[in-house]
Amino acid sequence: MASSEQSQPQLPTSAIQNRSTEKSSEVWFEYVVRVHPHHTDYAGIVWHGTYISWMEEARIESLRSIGIEFADLVNIGCDLPVVEISVRYHKAVKLGMVVVVKTRMANTEGVRLDWDYKIQSLDGQELYVSARITLVTIDREKGKIMRRLPPVMEEALTKLSI
Amino acid sequence: MASSEQSQPQLPTSAIQNRSTEKSSEVWFEYVVRVHPHHTDYAGIVWHGTYISWMEEARIESLRSIGIEFADLVNIGCDLPVVEISVRYHKAVKLGMVVVVKTRMANTEGVRLDWDYKIQSLDGQELYVSARITLVTIDREKGKIMRRLPPVMEEALTKLSI
Amino acid sequence: MASSEQSQPQLPTSAIQNRSTEKSSEVWFEYVVRVHPHHTDYAGIVWHGTYISWMEEARIESLRSIGIEFADLVNIGCDLPVVEISVRYHKAVKLGMVVVVKTRMANTEGVRLDWDYKIQSLDGQELYVSARITLVTIDREKGKIMRRLPPVMEEALTKLSI
Amino acid sequence: MASSEQSQPQLPTSAIQNRSTEKSSEVWFEYVVRVHPHHTDYAGIVWHGTYISWMEEARIESLRSIGIEFADLVNIGCDLPVVEISVRYHKAVKLGMVVVVKTRMANTEGVRLDWDYKIQSLDGQELYVSARITLVTIDREKGKIMRRLPPVMEEALTKLSI
Repeated sequence: MASSEQSQPQLPTSAIQNRSTEKSSEVWFEYVVRVHPHHTDYAGIVWHGTYISWMEEARIESLRSIGIEFADLVNIGCDLPVVEISVRYHKAVKLGMVVVVKTRMANTEGVRLDWDYKIQSLDGQELYVSARITLVTIDREKGKIMRRLPPVMEEALTKLSI
Repeated sequence: MASSEQSQPQLPTSAIQNRSTEKSSEVWFEYVVRVHPHHTDYAGIVWHGTYISWMEEARIESLRSIGIEFADLVNIGCDLPVVEISVRYHKAVKLGMVVVVKTRMANTEGVRLDWDYKIQSLDGQELYVSARITLVTIDREKGKIMRRLPPVMEEALTKLSI
Repeated sequence: MASSEQSQPQLPTSAIQNRSTEKSSEVWFEYVVRVHPHHTDYAGIVWHGTYISWMEEARIESLRSIGIEFADLVNIGCDLPVVEISVRYHKAVKLGMVVVVKTRMANTEGVRLDWDYKIQSLDGQELYVSARITLVTIDREKGKIMRRLPPVMEEALTKLSI
Repeated sequence: MASSEQSQPQLPTSAIQNRSTEKSSEVWFEYVVRVHPHHTDYAGIVWHGTYISWMEEARIESLRSIGIEFADLVNIGCDLPVVEISVRYHKAVKLGMVVVVKTRMANTEGVRLDWDYKIQSLDGQELYVSARITLVTIDREKGKIMRRLPPVMEEALTKLSI
C-alpha cells in the first residue's frame, strides 16, 4: 500500500499537530515471531523482505493494543499507506529462531506517523534489524491525506503519546 | 538475506576502492513488471513489501546483463546480503498496470555496493517509488565481508563504472 | 482470493455449457520464469508455495494472450476466485534456474474453469510440477457465481476451445 | 521445497509402516491466525496462496507440540519436502478476521506423511478451507527418501498415532 499523494504543504493540520509531542513513547510494543521455512531464502536465513511483513503485523497489533482495529479504519474509509521505510540489517536471523519485533510511535510531525522498530533476540542482547517506517492517514474516497485523524484514532494516539 | 557482519573498518579494500568512481553509471538498467493479484493488497494496489521483490529481481537481472550470474556467485561461496534499504513511496501502482523498475550502481564507497532505484511508468512520466539498497559481499564460509570481490565480479563492475 | 459460494447446482448455465468441449485445448500457453532469491527457501530450492504465484501469473498472461485483461474483468465486477488447487511436486527447482510454466484450459464442466499446468525445463525434458487449478466466475456485487460469463470472456473462451 | 525424488517403490519401509495406524489422530492441533494486509489481495480477502504459508506454520507448530523441532531435523540432514497439496476454498476470509488452522496427521501409508487441514472460524461454525498436504522425509545429503525416520521423529510420531 502506497500513498497516492504525499506532499500537501498547506493542510490545516491543527488536530494532528496538537497530538505531536516532544518525545516519543518510552514503551515499546512487543510482537514475537518464529522463523518458518517460508520466511527464509536459499541462504538459510530470513529473506530481507520478510521483515517488512513482520513489522506490518507488529504495527497493526500495537494499534489493536490501544483499541484501534485496523480493519475498522479501512471500513470507515481511512487508510494508512506506508510512504517511507528505512531498514538496517545488522545480523542474520535463522530458520527456527524466535525473535521479538519491538515498535513504538516516534515523534509525529504534521501528518506523518513515524514508527520505530528494533528486532531483537528475546533476551534483548542481540539486535538483528532496526528500522523506521512512516505512514500517513488517507481519506480513501478522496485519495487525499486526511486533515484530521478519525476520532477513534486521534483519541487512542493521544493516550499513547502521554 | 542479511549480513552477519556489517562493520569492519580496517579491511584492506584496495581492490574495491579502485573500482570506485566519482560518478555513478549514467545508464539505468530497466526491468519491466506487470502487477498481478498476488502483488496487491486489500486496497487494490501493490503492497509496499512487494517492491522489495521487484527490486531484487531487477538487481539480479542487471548483474546478469553485465555477465554476472548471481547463482554462480552463491555457488563459489560469495553472498551479497542486503544491509540497508531506504524506500520512498510516491504514488500507488494498481492491479494490471505495467511499470519499469530502473536501477544502477551508485558511487561505491569501500565495501558497500549501493544501488539506486526508481520505479516509473513506461513513458517515464510518473514516479511511483524511489529507493536505495545497499549490499556487501560476504565470504559465506567465514561469515565475513570479503576483502576482495570475486574476480568475475570485480571485472564486470569495473566495466560498469567506466 | 477464494469463492464465497461454491456449489449452486441448479444454475441456468446454458451459456457456459455451450462453451464446453469434449477435448481440452491442445495448445499450452508458455510462461518463462527465472528463480530469484525471494522464490527460494532455506533448502536452496523454490519454496512450494511460490509455484502458486507463478501459476497465477501464467494464467493471467494466457488470458491476456487471447484478449482478456484480468484487471478489466475485475473493474466490470467479475472476479475469478480459485476454488480448488491440486499440485504434485516431482522435482526441485533451484536458485538461478529458468523454467517454463505451461498452462491450458482443460475441459470445462458447468461453471467451473479448470486449468492444467506443468512446470518444465526449457527443453521439456524435466517435469518439476504438475497441477490443476479450478476457478469460478463470480459477480462480485452479488457475491454469487455468474449465470453467464461476461461477453468479452465468453467470446474469447469460445475461440480458445475450438 | 519440493522432492528431488518421489517414487522409490522397493524401499524397506518397515519402521515407517509399523507406525501406520488404521485411523488418524482424533485430535486436531489448532493454530490461530489473524488476517493482516500482506495476506490479502485486491479483492480485500486472503490471497489463495497465503493459506499455504499458514498451513506450513501450523504443521511446524504441531510438530513442536509433540517435541519435534523442524530446524533440528534440518540440521541433522533430514528434510520434509511437500510432494503434494490439494486445497478446496469454500469461503473467503477477510482483512482483520481471526481464523483457526486445524491440522492432524492422517493415515500414513509407506513413506508418505499426510496432513489434513481445515481452516475455520474460532467457533467452528464456518469452514473456509479444507486441504490435504503430503510430505516425505528426505536424506538431504543423498537426495533420497529416507528408509527410516530419524529416531526423534519416529518416536514422537508413534506417540501421536496411539
